[in-house]
Amino acid sequence: MAEVNIRPLGDRVLVKLVEEQETKKGGIIIPDTAKEKPQEATVVAVGPGRLEEGKRIPIELKKDQRVLISKYGGTEVKIDGEAYQILREDDVLAVVG
Amino acid sequence: MAEVNIRPLGDRVLVKLVEEQETKKGGIIIPDTAKEKPQEATVVAVGPGRLEEGKRIPIELKKDQRVLISKYGGTEVKIDGEAYQILREDDVLAVVG
Amino acid sequence: MAEVNIRPLGDRVLVKLVEEQETKKGGIIIPDTAKEKPQEATVVAVGPGRLEEGKRIPIELKKDQRVLISKYGGTEVKIDGEAYQILREDDVLAVVG
Amino acid sequence: MAEVNIRPLGDRVLVKLVEEQETKKGGIIIPDTAKEKPQEATVVAVGPGRLEEGKRIPIELKKDQRVLISKYGGTEVKIDGEAYQILREDDVLAVVG
Amino acid sequence: MAEVNIRPLGDRVLVKLVEEQETKKGGIIIPDTAKEKPQEATVVAVGPGRLEEGKRIPIELKKDQRVLISKYGGTEVKIDGEAYQILREDDVLAVVG
Amino acid sequence: MAEVNIRPLGDRVLVKLVEEQETKKGGIIIPDTAKEKPQEATVVAVGPGRLEEGKRIPIELKKDQRVLISKYGGTEVKIDGEAYQILREDDVLAVVG
Amino acid sequence: MAEVNIRPLGDRVLVKLVEEQETKKGGIIIPDTAKEKPQEATVVAVGPGRLEEGKRIPIELKKDQRVLISKYGGTEVKIDGEAYQILREDDVLAVVG
Repeated sequence: MAEVNIRPLGDRVLVKLVEEQETKKGGIIIPDTAKEKPQEATVVAVGPGRLEEGKRIPIELKKDQRVLISKYGGTEVKIDGEAYQILREDDVLAVVG
Repeated sequence: MAEVNIRPLGDRVLVKLVEEQETKKGGIIIPDTAKEKPQEATVVAVGPGRLEEGKRIPIELKKDQRVLISKYGGTEVKIDGEAYQILREDDVLAVVG
Repeated sequence: MAEVNIRPLGDRVLVKLVEEQETKKGGIIIPDTAKEKPQEATVVAVGPGRLEEGKRIPIELKKDQRVLISKYGGTEVKIDGEAYQILREDDVLAVVG
Repeated sequence: MAEVNIRPLGDRVLVKLVEEQETKKGGIIIPDTAKEKPQEATVVAVGPGRLEEGKRIPIELKKDQRVLISKYGGTEVKIDGEAYQILREDDVLAVVG
Repeated sequence: MAEVNIRPLGDRVLVKLVEEQETKKGGIIIPDTAKEKPQEATVVAVGPGRLEEGKRIPIELKKDQRVLISKYGGTEVKIDGEAYQILREDDVLAVVG
Repeated sequence: MAEVNIRPLGDRVLVKLVEEQETKKGGIIIPDTAKEKPQEATVVAVGPGRLEEGKRIPIELKKDQRVLISKYGGTEVKIDGEAYQILREDDVLAVVG
Repeated sequence: MAEVNIRPLGDRVLVKLVEEQETKKGGIIIPDTAKEKPQEATVVAVGPGRLEEGKRIPIELKKDQRVLISKYGGTEVKIDGEAYQILREDDVLAVVG
């Protein structure tokens, strides 16, 4: 995966959305009827973590991890024609694999 | 129950919904008229717990426990055709049995 | 009263709703016009209490106490045909008797 | 005033509403046009106070005090045909007399 | 100004609204078009202040001060035909004079 | 600028709105289409600052500073025919000049 | 870029919006369909940071950095015909480049 020149701030992470076809092959299908549909994505960059009373709380996610993210709270960005999302670490639900 | 390759983050747990038929046999019936209908589910995986001022608060639920969960706050995921839900530990109401 | 196999989590309690007829005999009548109508109920099981900065805050309600509960925040559950409710201790307004 | 068998929990108090006729004689008239109309009431029972980091914060109101209460946040209860209200101490605006 | 027999609780103050005619003479005119119109009033009684972690935070307003109050958060009370208001100290915007 | 006899309380400041004509000469034009239009104003008086755990946090704005203020949270007051506004220090966005 | 005479307060920053044409050349395209569309901007001035329990938390952004900002929470200002925005540091999502 190509490098991108975006560095998330605070407790934010930048993820690249996994296309739906690819999602189905991995065995996880997210139902259309779900009120809040999660999405699969790959971590591309993580912020330095937020400051809490002067102390930095590092982000535990790592580059290249496959994750399930919540649909809420994130911001879509397209870089060189591919869909990315910037979201807070707390909106990442789970690590896949 | 087969293993799943999803690790919840923070104070989240992954549960597998118990099918309705199975629910009725266990003696607990959730009324259709209830404003907030709970659901029975089985704990499949638990997160590491959330960080509070640098200290990890471990999740008290354990794998394979049968629980009642709130309908709010969770996210549905289908894995190999079966219904799972990722939700925060605080949205688990009670342990059954 | 028969035992039930549900253990509330955190600061939640499980109560069995007292039927209306029984309520009137006890002298307390809850008006139909009240914006928020409380209900009488009997405590069936109490959770371990919530954790606050690593310390457990025990629930002060005890099994078999008769209580008035708020209509909000609770979750109805039917067990063997009888109406129960799971709610947070803070949604219990008063002890009766 | 007869005793009632209701013990409020936490920072809640039980008050008996003063009937309107009685209110006018006391010199305080609450206008019909007021957005939030307070009501006069008499304190019947007080809870033990809420717990704050393990310490009990006692309620400062005393039985038999005449008070002005806010219309919001309280719960009406009728005991032996008389109107009572359970509300948090913070929803009591002032002591009268 | 006659004494009134109402003692505000916590961080609340009792103020007597200044009639509009009197307001204009003092030079301050509150526009009809203002989204949130303040009102002039005179402090009649102050509460003991709220408790913060067991310590009393005294109210800084004093009896007989002329103040500007916010229209929100207060509760109107009529005593012997005159308009009073009970409100939290934080809803008093400024001291006049 | 004439003195006014209003002393803001807590973390509030009193500002005099700069008339639109005067605003344009200063080079800053606030677009009509802006969702939240700021306004230019001059600081007339500042409160003592709010109390935080018994310690006074002084206001950093000074009398006669030209500022940009948010349209939300403030309260309009007219004194001797001129438009003033009372608002919290946090609703002042920037110092001009 | 010309200097502007606006100093943001607290944890606010002043940014100059990058025009859309310029954005596309940089390779980042923000989709029209995105629920929350971020915008590219250049940091023009940063505030001193907010006070937290008497300690100043300095802003980590620096003048001339290219950033992605959230559409919410900011306030538009036009200076000498160019579009600027004042927003809190937390509403800056990422640094570009």
